[in-house]
Amino acid sequence: MSSNLRLTVSCPDRKGLISALSSFISMHDGNILSADQYVSDEATFFMRLEIEGEGFGLSRDEFAGAFRPLARRHGMDWHVSHTDTPKKMAILVSRYDHCLTDLLWRWDAGELDAEIPLVVSNHPDLAPRVEAHGIPFHHLPVTKETKAEQESRVLDLLSENEVDLVVLARYMQILTPKFVDAYRDRLINIHHSFLPAFAGADPYRRAHERGVKTIGATAHYVSEELDAGPIIHQDVAHVSHRDTVDDLVRLGREVERRVLARSVRLHLEDRILVDGNRTVVFE
Amino acid sequence: MSSNLRLTVSCPDRKGLISALSSFISMHDGNILSADQYVSDEATFFMRLEIEGEGFGLSRDEFAGAFRPLARRHGMDWHVSHTDTPKKMAILVSRYDHCLTDLLWRWDAGELDAEIPLVVSNHPDLAPRVEAHGIPFHHLPVTKETKAEQESRVLDLLSENEVDLVVLARYMQILTPKFVDAYRDRLINIHHSFLPAFAGADPYRRAHERGVKTIGATAHYVSEELDAGPIIHQDVAHVSHRDTVDDLVRLGREVERRVLARSVRLHLEDRILVDGNRTVVFE
Amino acid sequence: MSSNLRLTVSCPDRKGLISALSSFISMHDGNILSADQYVSDEATFFMRLEIEGEGFGLSRDEFAGAFRPLARRHGMDWHVSHTDTPKKMAILVSRYDHCLTDLLWRWDAGELDAEIPLVVSNHPDLAPRVEAHGIPFHHLPVTKETKAEQESRVLDLLSENEVDLVVLARYMQILTPKFVDAYRDRLINIHHSFLPAFAGADPYRRAHERGVKTIGATAHYVSEELDAGPIIHQDVAHVSHRDTVDDLVRLGREVERRVLARSVRLHLEDRILVDGNRTVVFE
Amino acid sequence: MSSNLRLTVSCPDRKGLISALSSFISMHDGNILSADQYVSDEATFFMRLEIEGEGFGLSRDEFAGAFRPLARRHGMDWHVSHTDTPKKMAILVSRYDHCLTDLLWRWDAGELDAEIPLVVSNHPDLAPRVEAHGIPFHHLPVTKETKAEQESRVLDLLSENEVDLVVLARYMQILTPKFVDAYRDRLINIHHSFLPAFAGADPYRRAHERGVKTIGATAHYVSEELDAGPIIHQDVAHVSHRDTVDDLVRLGREVERRVLARSVRLHLEDRILVDGNRTVVFE
Repeated sequence: MSSNLRLTVSCPDRKGLISALSSFISMHDGNILSADQYVSDEATFFMRLEIEGEGFGLSRDEFAGAFRPLARRHGMDWHVSHTDTPKKMAILVSRYDHCLTDLLWRWDAGELDAEIPLVVSNHPDLAPRVEAHGIPFHHLPVTKETKAEQESRVLDLLSENEVDLVVLARYMQILTPKFVDAYRDRLINIHHSFLPAFAGADPYRRAHERGVKTIGATAHYVSEELDAGPIIHQDVAHVSHRDTVDDLVRLGREVERRVLARSVRLHLEDRILVDGNRTVVFE
Repeated sequence: MSSNLRLTVSCPDRKGLISALSSFISMHDGNILSADQYVSDEATFFMRLEIEGEGFGLSRDEFAGAFRPLARRHGMDWHVSHTDTPKKMAILVSRYDHCLTDLLWRWDAGELDAEIPLVVSNHPDLAPRVEAHGIPFHHLPVTKETKAEQESRVLDLLSENEVDLVVLARYMQILTPKFVDAYRDRLINIHHSFLPAFAGADPYRRAHERGVKTIGATAHYVSEELDAGPIIHQDVAHVSHRDTVDDLVRLGREVERRVLARSVRLHLEDRILVDGNRTVVFE
Repeated sequence: MSSNLRLTVSCPDRKGLISALSSFISMHDGNILSADQYVSDEATFFMRLEIEGEGFGLSRDEFAGAFRPLARRHGMDWHVSHTDTPKKMAILVSRYDHCLTDLLWRWDAGELDAEIPLVVSNHPDLAPRVEAHGIPFHHLPVTKETKAEQESRVLDLLSENEVDLVVLARYMQILTPKFVDAYRDRLINIHHSFLPAFAGADPYRRAHERGVKTIGATAHYVSEELDAGPIIHQDVAHVSHRDTVDDLVRLGREVERRVLARSVRLHLEDRILVDGNRTVVFE
Repeated sequence: MSSNLRLTVSCPDRKGLISALSSFISMHDGNILSADQYVSDEATFFMRLEIEGEGFGLSRDEFAGAFRPLARRHGMDWHVSHTDTPKKMAILVSRYDHCLTDLLWRWDAGELDAEIPLVVSNHPDLAPRVEAHGIPFHHLPVTKETKAEQESRVLDLLSENEVDLVVLARYMQILTPKFVDAYRDRLINIHHSFLPAFAGADPYRRAHERGVKTIGATAHYVSEELDAGPIIHQDVAHVSHRDTVDDLVRLGREVERRVLARSVRLHLEDRILVDGNRTVVFE
């Protein structure tokens, strides 16, 4: 059994949690490959452990049964994943192709350990790009009248494909609370500004009007409130008076794709734990 | 005459402006050391010229008379300064010392070509720091009742000292429109966020609450609206979930002093031209 | 005639050059859209001018004849290009696809104003990637014995296609002085380190061994000496002890493609002038 | 007892180390405030633990006796420090004041948790700067003839003051192997280039000659070979053709002081473990 385990845990902080967790693993002859830990100001304990599968005494089926009593005693939220079972990731996209193209290239290059069972778009334009990678492309157009129905069909597709992570790679539709709730903490959006600046529409034009000298991009989990969910990663680029709105769009694409790809990678490796409206990121 | 000239010009764009300006200088046997030019989207022409003083045919007294007809013909706003006459810079400060200390150190190190005839503070704390550099320190305390009167005394001091540039190095008082108007485009503030995010009070605490992964600082000319004036320079630092509000304050100090010092230097070298609510920065 | 002109000039510095150049353009009713100028420590004058084609009194055929006397008088090296005539760019590549893919995506997105008449590789792997963009792909394998002959065929292909710019997008062959000389200042290489550190082979492995905390990439014009030509642009990424050589490779790819793309764009817009073993870059 | 403990450990990797360490602490009723762990490619295990003093069952005197058997069994190199006992830091400096000034300012601001019992210089210039902070300044001039003797006196001073950490804040003397050995892994130097580029003398001049577009600074532990010890932190600044050697010096000062201060802070908080010629930095 060459697959390793990743265990993430959060619970109220108290003495002895690291000892309890590491002893549990030692007791079953497990080897901890890496351990990251953090206690928030509000005294919540977060931990991520990578455990070598080789030699570990608990089979995949046995783990939950053996771990549950310990988890219950400490009130733990916990999640375990196996490195031989990549997450299933869906990408939603509209017409802008830079984030999609970059994710697909990185996926081909082995940077993103995921299956991609489908890409969904409200426009047909990017079908060839997606299908060239052997990935099914679903064109589900949307109008004001069909919005609810279209979203419902998207949700059906995600569900049929047992999707673990939904990436909004510049998907220009606002999702309903029902969608957001179904994929809470598993729905990553890239916003083309350094939030909270320029939340909402048309950030590059507004950045240009304000005369900023720095533009940015923000990847975050989607919550009910627009562009207000837990931030995963942000980065910026310097700009000058010479840069037109078109230049900001061009320079911003660079930042957007970098920030999104890094965030997706962190999620796929179970490195992000959500702490209220903040994220704990174990890099 | 070893002093060089810096000429900055802005006017409606039209054909032949560079030729007109450079020919004017050539005609008087001037040597252009550097030239920067920019035309905005709104067809405003901006230019900055450094002219060697040695060999230039126009004396300091003659320049304006010779240049004015050309300027008038093209509707130019223009300004000339001489490198042997450093600007007079006043610093206003409250209790935080990092920006002040950094400016004074750079001034000592020869990075800032200015005279500093005075530092004004509403608190007495930083007097020894300032006086150690041989600079007069004026303590003008302020209460709600004495605000108008105190500001009036500050303005008098600035005027008596013929101050060209006022730097708010974390001066924790909001200035009246009268003050802003008196030093329009000559009044630099450092705000401890990447504007327009977190304008107003307590940006580090709000940044922490929002869970941002990047903090920043913004230097801008002060206008009537709080934290909304033309931005000169911005920079950021990456932060993580481990950083408390105190850590953000500490990391932010680093960015604030760097951003402010660079902006002051650019202003002192006449490298910033204001274009409505934006800045043209010839670096 | 909607095409604009870009004129770049370098010559020994002397009084009146800006005036002479701008007057020449004014004399022929030209409108200068942008002007950048620089004088080096060694008193060499560099200038780049963008001139509006609309209304300019000199036709494409007349320009050289009209300008040559002025250029000769001042000993100018000069070059004029027209914005309706994109440069012809060839890409040489081996097996790594990240720089190639990124250049092609940017070209599709309109970021790079060039024709790409051919891509040449010593491996067949990337043919489908290139041909999907409608660009001819030439596979010219190379062995120790056929190296001279292969390079000769590459040069023939470049010549037949009247190539203006050759981009080495991780082309893993060292070029002969003959090749370098044929495309001097028109041959851009991306090296996967911040030169002069780790010139030569295997920089990521050597960076890892040295335990650096920053990796980088450098785009430069190729000269006879390996990795020693004029540097165009450099950028870096921060790394930590957790990053393996494979991580450095992955993080480095990101920097390489960004640095190369920016350098190619600058070259295509005639923004780079070579000054001995340095570059003047008018951004 | 409000002082917390910091325990750092390195040893050959094997199963159960985290469990053994955390159980040891739990057994004595200790609360782990933070835990960082890393296993190198060469299978060396590194860990840093912060343990709450309040409620911990082992007194300061008892800790070593209780921990030693466990440490011996696993072949651990280990070190414990207490947060109420700041390290004693000496600063060695020559004439450049920027790094010294910055360290002293940060120390005043509470950013550096250390005692500074002395500053040593081979020049008298910076005495007033140091004494203004109430720190003894020792002027020990050095000539080619007195080099050995002077270094010997410096070592005596460090020893008399029981110094834990020596910071070379642009100290322009090469130390002998005897000195290096006495303060191995406790002797931090700031070099004004991104190593391994421009090791040795005059890096800014050489960077300018090479025409780089990025300059940097590197903080490292000093080893016998010049500028070749384990790197702690590096950072860079972008430069352009316009920047003279003097500009590089000015821009570099900014990077130097930032990189040095961060490295010193990391060391003072026991966040750096040395792994051969590399560093493990738990930020």
